[in-house]
Amino acid sequence: MNFSSKTIEQAVESLSVFPGVGKRSALRMVLYLINRPSDEVKNLAQNLINLKENLTQCKICCNISDTEICAICNTKNRNQQVICLVEDFQDVMAIESTNQFFGLYHVLGGLISPMDGIGPDSLTINNLIQRIENSEISEVIIALNANIEGDTTAFYIARKLQVFTHIKISTISKGIAVGGELEYADEITLGRSILNRVPLEL
Amino acid sequence: MNFSSKTIEQAVESLSVFPGVGKRSALRMVLYLINRPSDEVKNLAQNLINLKENLTQCKICCNISDTEICAICNTKNRNQQVICLVEDFQDVMAIESTNQFFGLYHVLGGLISPMDGIGPDSLTINNLIQRIENSEISEVIIALNANIEGDTTAFYIARKLQVFTHIKISTISKGIAVGGELEYADEITLGRSILNRVPLEL
Repeated sequence: MNFSSKTIEQAVESLSVFPGVGKRSALRMVLYLINRPSDEVKNLAQNLINLKENLTQCKICCNISDTEICAICNTKNRNQQVICLVEDFQDVMAIESTNQFFGLYHVLGGLISPMDGIGPDSLTINNLIQRIENSEISEVIIALNANIEGDTTAFYIARKLQVFTHIKISTISKGIAVGGELEYADEITLGRSILNRVPLEL
Repeated sequence: MNFSSKTIEQAVESLSVFPGVGKRSALRMVLYLINRPSDEVKNLAQNLINLKENLTQCKICCNISDTEICAICNTKNRNQQVICLVEDFQDVMAIESTNQFFGLYHVLGGLISPMDGIGPDSLTINNLIQRIENSEISEVIIALNANIEGDTTAFYIARKLQVFTHIKISTISKGIAVGGELEYADEITLGRSILNRVPLEL
């Protein structure tokens, strides 16, 4: 593309690094910004800088947070005895938006994946163990992706947590999606959902 | 969406004002930025601010420009006698990337559209007339959108330019797209392309 303006070209270059944003979308964004008030553009720029300057890691759950202790860990009326173990910030968001879980979280920061050079030491597993030692946790719910990395990590952590004999370790259920139709479910999911069948509640 | 972080929420809000960017895409961008080096994010923010601070309108062709006189008007070896009249910056970019036009441009800044309250005075038509009076322009190519607003504007400007009897006024040709198939062309385009047929060059 021939921009005939260095300023526009640089802005387009900067914006097109985003996932899913190409040169054309970036140009649309730039042309949109040119027509917005100066204050709005400065505000946007500041909000992006704040992402690097204001965000930190919660000292308790290792989630991304504005403060040393995140808003969830700081909420006193959440169930302090249950920890939901997730991979990252997006998973916390996903579970929070279900409005079905009122305990605490622990964010691993990744999954064990030898192919990508991520071993158990890269994750916040030791923080989790320390956390369990120093508090009255009674259950850990492992909510990781249902793939090889997720299963490996879940297995590894479950083994580590076996030393805490008083703690119940559970994992989120897998099966066909609510509203899903059997004929479109993949064989492995459907097979597992038959093996892991639950009593029908009447 | 429940972000549990004001900083992330504000950044997502800011980014989701872009055309074609929803909350989910904005969140993807934010999570991407969190994992980038601080310098890169600051650089992006500065490039966006530059859009409002560095850009100006070229004093000659009214195009968006980094400098008082834009790069195209400043290029001495372009044909100084032909002006291509376009609606906006994107049209200049589109024509430049054809590599088929080596004259100058004039950017109208819009099209006459009484429905949207845009009259001839909102456009840079007077600048164009002054420009023609003070230079040796011999041809004006009207390259506007092929819709009602474009045709109205082209007609209005062509009438205004009739006082310059020495100037040739032309418009870009309309017809079926190169590589297009007749059966998929719309009736009006195909009808016009028959009426405006040109001699076959052998």
